[in-house]
Amino acid sequence: MIRQSQLFLTTLREDPAEAEVASHTLMLRAGLVRRAGSGLFSWLPLGLRVRRNVERIVREEMEAIGGQEVLFPGLLPREPYERTGRWEEYGDGIFRLQDRKGADHLLGPTHEEMFTLLVQDLVSSYKQLPLTLFQIQDKYRDEARPRAGLLRAREFSMKDAYSFDVDDAGLEASYQAQRDAYERIFQRLGLDYVIVAADAGAMGGSKSEEFLHPTPVGEDTIVRSAGGYAANVEAFTTVPPAALPIDGQAPASIRATPDTPTIETLVAHANEHHPREDGRPWTAADTLKNVVLRLTQPDGSTELVVIGLPGDREVHDKRVEVAFQPAEVVPATEEDFAKHPGLVKGYIGPWSEAGAVLGEASTTGIRFLLDPRVVDGTAWLTGANLAGHHVFGLIAGRDFVGDGWVEAADVRAGDEAPDGSGPVTLERGMEVGHVFQLGRKYAEALGLKVLDQNGKLVVPTMGSYGIGVTRNLAAIVERYHDEKGIVWPREVAPFDVHVVATGKDEAVFAIADRVAADVEALGLEVLYDDRRKVSPGVKFGDVELLGMPTAVVVGRDAPEGLVEVWDRATGERQQVRIEELAAALAR
Amino acid sequence: MIRQSQLFLTTLREDPAEAEVASHTLMLRAGLVRRAGSGLFSWLPLGLRVRRNVERIVREEMEAIGGQEVLFPGLLPREPYERTGRWEEYGDGIFRLQDRKGADHLLGPTHEEMFTLLVQDLVSSYKQLPLTLFQIQDKYRDEARPRAGLLRAREFSMKDAYSFDVDDAGLEASYQAQRDAYERIFQRLGLDYVIVAADAGAMGGSKSEEFLHPTPVGEDTIVRSAGGYAANVEAFTTVPPAALPIDGQAPASIRATPDTPTIETLVAHANEHHPREDGRPWTAADTLKNVVLRLTQPDGSTELVVIGLPGDREVHDKRVEVAFQPAEVVPATEEDFAKHPGLVKGYIGPWSEAGAVLGEASTTGIRFLLDPRVVDGTAWLTGANLAGHHVFGLIAGRDFVGDGWVEAADVRAGDEAPDGSGPVTLERGMEVGHVFQLGRKYAEALGLKVLDQNGKLVVPTMGSYGIGVTRNLAAIVERYHDEKGIVWPREVAPFDVHVVATGKDEAVFAIADRVAADVEALGLEVLYDDRRKVSPGVKFGDVELLGMPTAVVVGRDAPEGLVEVWDRATGERQQVRIEELAAALAR
Repeated sequence: MIRQSQLFLTTLREDPAEAEVASHTLMLRAGLVRRAGSGLFSWLPLGLRVRRNVERIVREEMEAIGGQEVLFPGLLPREPYERTGRWEEYGDGIFRLQDRKGADHLLGPTHEEMFTLLVQDLVSSYKQLPLTLFQIQDKYRDEARPRAGLLRAREFSMKDAYSFDVDDAGLEASYQAQRDAYERIFQRLGLDYVIVAADAGAMGGSKSEEFLHPTPVGEDTIVRSAGGYAANVEAFTTVPPAALPIDGQAPASIRATPDTPTIETLVAHANEHHPREDGRPWTAADTLKNVVLRLTQPDGSTELVVIGLPGDREVHDKRVEVAFQPAEVVPATEEDFAKHPGLVKGYIGPWSEAGAVLGEASTTGIRFLLDPRVVDGTAWLTGANLAGHHVFGLIAGRDFVGDGWVEAADVRAGDEAPDGSGPVTLERGMEVGHVFQLGRKYAEALGLKVLDQNGKLVVPTMGSYGIGVTRNLAAIVERYHDEKGIVWPREVAPFDVHVVATGKDEAVFAIADRVAADVEALGLEVLYDDRRKVSPGVKFGDVELLGMPTAVVVGRDAPEGLVEVWDRATGERQQVRIEELAAALAR
Repeated sequence: MIRQSQLFLTTLREDPAEAEVASHTLMLRAGLVRRAGSGLFSWLPLGLRVRRNVERIVREEMEAIGGQEVLFPGLLPREPYERTGRWEEYGDGIFRLQDRKGADHLLGPTHEEMFTLLVQDLVSSYKQLPLTLFQIQDKYRDEARPRAGLLRAREFSMKDAYSFDVDDAGLEASYQAQRDAYERIFQRLGLDYVIVAADAGAMGGSKSEEFLHPTPVGEDTIVRSAGGYAANVEAFTTVPPAALPIDGQAPASIRATPDTPTIETLVAHANEHHPREDGRPWTAADTLKNVVLRLTQPDGSTELVVIGLPGDREVHDKRVEVAFQPAEVVPATEEDFAKHPGLVKGYIGPWSEAGAVLGEASTTGIRFLLDPRVVDGTAWLTGANLAGHHVFGLIAGRDFVGDGWVEAADVRAGDEAPDGSGPVTLERGMEVGHVFQLGRKYAEALGLKVLDQNGKLVVPTMGSYGIGVTRNLAAIVERYHDEKGIVWPREVAPFDVHVVATGKDEAVFAIADRVAADVEALGLEVLYDDRRKVSPGVKFGDVELLGMPTAVVVGRDAPEGLVEVWDRATGERQQVRIEELAAALAR
């Protein structure tokens, strides 16, 4: 039992100015954490209890599937990350430092390399596999914009697990076991989730799914169809329309389109001055927008690339980033355009009277990637690389070709799911877990081999599985709160029961002492508000703010043997006789 | 129960080349840790179990005295450390880094600043005090020479606690409570200790004691007297002899002492060419050695200083470092001497025919500090600042004075304890705990104030209390091992009982399965060696290397209802009937 008069806890009545989202506000107000720096948090006693509960749930489910716990340093040498290329790939996203001898180090963002090296160090035979190791550890990422409290912090606790198998079937089984364990974890944490196909990101590897928790404060977008499709917007793949016959299509024609540097002005101009013969109005979807981007690779080398996509779509920040990772993607600058006079800003297109302008084989030599909708035989209204001019009826596959396809356009409600399960809807979500099939990438880069049954050296295949402990904790607060405070799900609550003594009557406090002890004797964890000279209003405010599942209020009627049992979630309040309290709490 | 066939454990038969001390060797061989980098370790499942046990003991004893657990980030902003001056004072000893915006950070070596700011943030009244907070957390120090495995690592787990009180009596009580808790912790860990007066080092503050565990691998020196005095050599204070009358002493005389740049050559020369009238031979103790040092302050400024001490003593590395902290101390270089032609190397002394040479008021202006033995009236044979010449009978207080005293000479067995409790002995020790009375230094620097009972703002007084979790764990291995392996004390052992099935008989393994389950049902933690195709020799080697307090060997005689119970510490082996196993284990 913890007595509130002794507990290091200061609850705040007002919302702190620094907090943007409810979970951040409430975690500060309820005295769970305090800010220690940008994206850095100190955990107070109450917060640490919840954190330990979340860790416990994660640990239990990992151990239930045979995971064995280890613990790596947070400070890591550069060398292993150099060997897999991640030292560079991470760019600004990790913290780097040098020791007093000038040796490069990083603060671990995830530990694929270290786990691979450990297994290489200690495992030599297929007999020691399959193996699943995990750690619950503080991770570091140098976020460009730490925000939303624990939802995007720079130091955060995460469970990362890694599986090692000799063959693909083994990896599939290990992956499935983790996936199942994750489902149990989220069920126990009380967090809804959608399992979505994910882009594998900087991890590499072949198959990857994310657990996205639907919430308006999420930074991800869940794309779902009623027929069961689910993906992170970054992993969505476009359904290309059928190609059209090229034969018999009219030749393209250049026409003057003065002052039409934007899609909007172009469509308006075309409808006014160049109406279609069949009367259908021109729309943005008829135009081909050519977006010039500059890619910067981790080694510093840069390249221009042009994406050709229907004019009614935008290039989607995250999808284009994934398409070109690990490169950094920014719009081309004036300087870039100055180097390529063949590109006439506002009137860029794949073709000009002098020949192809975009593409590796063109006059500019700039790589030209097409949106999957730009299939052969489709006709486009696009720039003619001549100021104030566009070309009408430019036919893909006849008048221009791309160097390849790119999934970079935004996704919209109503787009077709790639698995044919119908139109999709979009929803905000927060990544709360991630499972990857890494395959042999890390094992190969770091030289992990084991002897198989035939005495032959083989490269094991790996999976990597992450759950953010502190982020999930914040997600729980985000999901379980009302205007008065937190409403903890039972399994993660810092205490099961909040016993509150009210008034000034010492006899009541004596009864409350007994009640608190009795409740604890039931095997429940008790926070006991035994504070003198604190008004009932303040105490009840704390009960609602701190959010234990059940409160037992010992007040005026206690000498008559009556206390109140409050249910934080339903708001239900019930007077019960003290001798019936155990039964009431068991309900 | 953990089955050894499933456990991620590879024991090593050979001593790894990288290990210098027994604890490091055995922790690697028994599969507790692996090297992850210089001074960086990964914890394997068995090691993590022991680590959690040590943490649990520390946590229980902290909670028993009302300590409340919190957790700070490892990555910290510079600003608070700037305000207390420690950002500079730590010099090369901490890891520093910048985030992507160029903001300075450090990896926390200890958290005085952060705790002070947290309390300043949340505590406003004396009513909230006394308060003791603690964390068990990974700390970082950029050691010049990481060595001896976990004994001096760059990332290590430490419990640091901080007490806050309104007045000195409160601090004294909080300090005593921690000191008592530390005694209980070391008793539970099975580590002998000597509580010694310590130098407060970079922490500042008034009173400080260290818990030193006597061990030959320790880096500290315990100075003790039979009468009860105990100090770290760094904190030892010299008992000065009584001053002697100056009146009536003969005048000093310069004499030619060619080729005598060292104490040894000088003493030999003096005995040969300048014997004393009373026949006593000259000894090194009669000479005054003047050691020129260069101090570099954290801000980069440098200063020369000369220490005058009896020629039979050496300047002690650690004691001189403490004397001048936070400055770095190195011997003066040729360049330094070149700037001060008044200092004649090999013949330096406080005096020359032209007047005083050492001291702030002298011709060189160099600060001159004296060993406490150089009291007024003592006569010295020392350099005359003239090549090949020394001065005989130079009288302290008459012919020269210092700018002050310095405790920088080495301490020797037989020196008098400062408390009058007799001559001291010296012994190697390892710092396993440290308690400090910080006083108001941090509170003042960081603006922590609370209202006292009279509504007046007062500055609280603080204590800081540290125990290295991982270092203590290594100290336990260092203390409890024999030539065959580790001998875990019961309370920290990774498992209570090691059940070992031997042979090839499946019937024996079936019995062992039952025995292991039965032992677990007694409430004991069981490691069960259920490996097939592993020889008894290898299994018994593991039993001895891994060092569980008790092993139960289930072998050939098991079908007759007999097993062997081995006591790892005593080596005693006893055959017992399976039905009497519970009783045998309870002994």
